[in-house]
Parts: sequence; structure tokens; C-alpha cells
Amino acid sequence: MIIDALNCSNWDKSLFIEALEGGVTCAHVTLAVWETARETLSLVDRWNRFFRQYPELIMKVESAADIRQAKEVGKVGIMLGFQNSSPLEDDLGMVEIFHQLGVRVIQITYNNASLLGSGCYEPNDGGLTRFGREVVHEMNRVGTVVDLSHVGEQTTLDAISHSDRPVAVTHSNPHWLSHIPRNKSEKVMRELAAADGMMGCSLYPFLIGGPEVTLAQFCESMARAADVMGVEKLGIGTDLVRKCTPEYLEWLRSGRWTRQSSYGPAGPDAKPGWPEWQSWFKTPLDFGTVADGLQAAGFSAEETAGIMGENWLRFFEKVIG
Amino acid sequence: MIIDALNCSNWDKSLFIEALEGGVTCAHVTLAVWETARETLSLVDRWNRFFRQYPELIMKVESAADIRQAKEVGKVGIMLGFQNSSPLEDDLGMVEIFHQLGVRVIQITYNNASLLGSGCYEPNDGGLTRFGREVVHEMNRVGTVVDLSHVGEQTTLDAISHSDRPVAVTHSNPHWLSHIPRNKSEKVMRELAAADGMMGCSLYPFLIGGPEVTLAQFCESMARAADVMGVEKLGIGTDLVRKCTPEYLEWLRSGRWTRQSSYGPAGPDAKPGWPEWQSWFKTPLDFGTVADGLQAAGFSAEETAGIMGENWLRFFEKVIG
Repeated sequence: MIIDALNCSNWDKSLFIEALEGGVTCAHVTLAVWETARETLSLVDRWNRFFRQYPELIMKVESAADIRQAKEVGKVGIMLGFQNSSPLEDDLGMVEIFHQLGVRVIQITYNNASLLGSGCYEPNDGGLTRFGREVVHEMNRVGTVVDLSHVGEQTTLDAISHSDRPVAVTHSNPHWLSHIPRNKSEKVMRELAAADGMMGCSLYPFLIGGPEVTLAQFCESMARAADVMGVEKLGIGTDLVRKCTPEYLEWLRSGRWTRQSSYGPAGPDAKPGWPEWQSWFKTPLDFGTVADGLQAAGFSAEETAGIMGENWLRFFEKVIG
Repeated sequence: MIIDALNCSNWDKSLFIEALEGGVTCAHVTLAVWETARETLSLVDRWNRFFRQYPELIMKVESAADIRQAKEVGKVGIMLGFQNSSPLEDDLGMVEIFHQLGVRVIQITYNNASLLGSGCYEPNDGGLTRFGREVVHEMNRVGTVVDLSHVGEQTTLDAISHSDRPVAVTHSNPHWLSHIPRNKSEKVMRELAAADGMMGCSLYPFLIGGPEVTLAQFCESMARAADVMGVEKLGIGTDLVRKCTPEYLEWLRSGRWTRQSSYGPAGPDAKPGWPEWQSWFKTPLDFGTVADGLQAAGFSAEETAGIMGENWLRFFEKVIG
């Protein structure tokens, strides 16, 4: 079973087929990044239409049981999520509203500060805010995964300690692979694991240290991460951006908050445009290569199956039911 | 000339008459506290209707020249402002949009963290955010006053140093009068004055140390503030809440961000309801009493006139034109 804990692609029929052919049982897809509540309703509707249009390829998943069913019937399970808390606006009630609509993962900040806390690119991080504490508590109540990937260090640590349920970093790497604010310190990894949380290691070029990094180097990093967190706390969150447009990159980077292009998930300002991906992972068809690499790096077949999907399944079982 | 740099009343005809009888030439009134852009448009419309309905009592002021005209024609000049940046949402473009609609003061946070920075009741303050810097710069460009009254200490200091134009604390008191997060440290007062900014001292009971505090004590504090900042940097921002309802208090305190009643501008949770005001200042009709108190405390007639309004007029001339 392959679970991709974050796939940010600009989905269409051809990408559903590609994921299916790559053996993906569940992909957590990105709806909102900077969108308001109202704008996000239309993004949910877009997926409602996809589910009606391609019932032979995809199905909506809202629980671990749904993911198992997707595996059984041979479809790609789609888990809806946000990379920012912007759809909640300032309204605690929106956590349950979006849960009712099927959203199961909310990242509490996206690079910048949100009303909940500080993003990884803020110069300073004041930690989880008063509203942030309320939202984490409410996400615990309704069963929404707290995602901390693009979140600042102090806010990440605060969220780990404030949450009553395990939390996740769905798509980041350890600092030792690339020491950038978007990746995570050993301290965060330890606290995350101690709170029974998961880390999805990313295959995004910028986050592995560049496309010249080899599969073996990536898998060595996974082995080191397993030493720090325990192998059962590791998964994959590719951060694939298949068919994403330059306009979408601009939206991710600058939203409505600045009129300058600003560095973001795709790297510093100096490198505009979507990056070239490493030869050994370009599409979901390459998941098998990654699994082979993990075994070559010394992971057992069982451990590899855990990293590729089973660990996420158990995590989702605990957090969203 | 009396300028009240913050009057949060639930305005109606009787309050316009009261302000006029109290000699108020300009009142900065509060539109949004937690409202979104769309909700705030309706709050602007409410004032559009007031201006049409009571042209003999009030006029909209958007510049220092407008304030002088209000004085000349004997009306209460109304300056529109926000006590939070919520109407900007995440959109830098909203600064100019609301400026076009007449808004001349925006407080960058209200007690809690906003997208711009940290509020005075947050447990930690990470300072002005990336978006906050953009917004302060844009407010400088279009000529909107940056208000720092309910703002956290670090964010306040950051905003003072990032702003190219003088900024204001429209309605807070020095910590020595009441050492609460809503009041300001001597450090903030010094940096504010050094950047040519203004501090409007408030008459809100909670902020002066309780309704038992005497006029003489308040005026002694003003004298001490004059020593720290210079007398020409001081004004009044009453924070009057005439005719405000219990429901509005609940909105101010808890907005949509919590389901618990939360302490806010009116004091700790333990004291629900609007406070009793001190005997010597209950309505704009008591401004004369305050002016008398200032002179009794040793301020000259000219200095008193400065504090009561002329200092704000000069400040607005510089910042909004």
C-alpha cells in the first residue's frame, strides 16, 4: 500500500491514471493555500465534481477504513487537505464545517504567519497563538490532522505539546539533508515521535538538497531518521507538483500578501520557476524505485511497507478514525 | 479644539449631539474589530448613511484640513478607523481600497495575533510578520495611521522602527498607571516619541487603574508622560463605549475565535459587563474637567490645548495630510 501524505499536483484524469498505475492507494491532496472560506468551498466543489466524473479511478477517503476500501477496490483514495488555515478565517466553527465537507488535514501555517502561529519563513516565531490553541483543540475534537510541515519551529513544538492527538509533518525532510527553514530539526523530530506523531519525508528537489542528490543518499537519510524517530514514525509525502503552472507557483509564493515575488516552497527568489526533479523520482510511477532503494539501504520488507504506506494508515486510524 | 483619538461608542443621533455639546471637533470612531473585508464594507455604509442623515451634526474627515473645517463650521468631524487589520484579510490591496473609502487609522492587531503581528494578550510576541511589514509600508504610501494600542510589545517596537511615517498609540496609558498588557512600557513610549509618534492617553477605567483613580492622579501621570515623551507627543483617546451593548462586549472579547468568554479591553474574565466609569469622566461633556485638571497639574494653557487636540491635529497633518 502506497500512501502519499502530500501531493500538490494540478490533478486531472491523466494524473489519476498515473497515480493508479504507480500503485497509490491514498493521496492527500491540497485544496487551499491562501484561499478564504468561501473560495475554499469552490475548491471542495471541484473535488465533488472529480469524484462524480471519475468514479472508476478515484474515491474520497475520510477514514482509515475508507483507505482500506480504496485498496480493496483498486482506486486512488483522495484525502482532502489544506496547506494553510486561511479557510478557517478567524472562525473556530469552520474546523467542524470543513470536517463535515471531508477535509481531514489542515496545515496550521503556510510559510508566513497565520492567525494560528508562525510560518517557517517568518523572521521570528512567537509560537502557537491563543486562536491557534483553540483550533488545535477543536481539530482534536472533530478528528482533523494537524499538519506542521511549513510551520515555524517554535509553533511546531507548541502544536506538538498542545495537541491531545498525534500530529504530523506530512512533507518535510530532516535538516541534515538540507538545512533550510522548510526542513525539520532533530529536536522537532524527537518531540514529534515522542508524541506518537509521523514525519512524511519529501521528494521535492529543494527539500532533499537538490536534484543531484541520489536515491541512496535519500535512503541513508531515512535510515538516520529511523534511528531518531523509530521506523514506524516515518512515511512519504512527495510534495509532487505535476502539471502545476507558473501562475500557481506565483500564487503559492506571493498570494495576495506581497507584490514582490517571494521565496517559498520552490526555493529562493533567485530561482524562479518549478524545479527539475531528480532522475530517480519524477512521478508516482517511481514509487517502486524508492521502495527498492529503502530495501537496498537495509530496511526490511516490512519496514519498507510501513514507510511506503502502512505507517500512515495506522496514524490516520488513530487521528481521524 | 478637542480631538478624541479613539471613541468606540455605539453612535446614534443623541451621541453626536453629546459630542458636539462636549466641544469635540474630531472623533476617531471604530468600525471593524473582527470583521472581514465584506462585513466592513457594510460598516462603512452605516457611516455613509449617518453622514447623509445628520449633516448638521457630523462630517467625515479624511485630512487635517477637514478637521479644521469641522472646527470652523461647528460639527463633529468623524475619522473612520479599524481596531484590527481583519478587514484587510490577507490582501495588501485592501489598504488602498479602505483608504479610498475614507479609513485613516488601522490598528494592526486587536489583543490577539493578526496576520500582521502579535496582540497584547498573546502569551508570546514574534513581532511584525512578513505581511505586517508589507502592510506598514503600504499604509505609509497611502497615508493611513498605524495604530499600536492593543498591539504586543515586540510588534509595537517593530512597527515603530519599520514605519517611514510617525505611528500612534491612540488609546493606552503608561504601565505606571496600570501595569497591564494593554498599557505601554516606558521603552515603547520613548521609541514612539523618538520616531515622532503620538500617544493618546485613555480614560477607560481599566486602563487608568480603576474608577477610583482621581483626576489629579491621571493628570500627574500625564505630567510624567510629558517628561518621558515630550508634551507635544501626548493626546487623549478616551476609548469611550457609550451605549455599547453586552453583546458587543462579547464580540470584542471572543469574536469568532473562541467559545469561551475571554478577557479583553474591559478587564479580566472575572469581571463581566461594561465597567462603571470614574465620576470625573463619563461622557464627552466632561472634557472640560480633564482640561481643567491638566492645568491644575501644571500644564500651561497652550500645552493643555495641545494635549486636548492640537497635538493630534499636527500628527494627522504629517501622516494623513
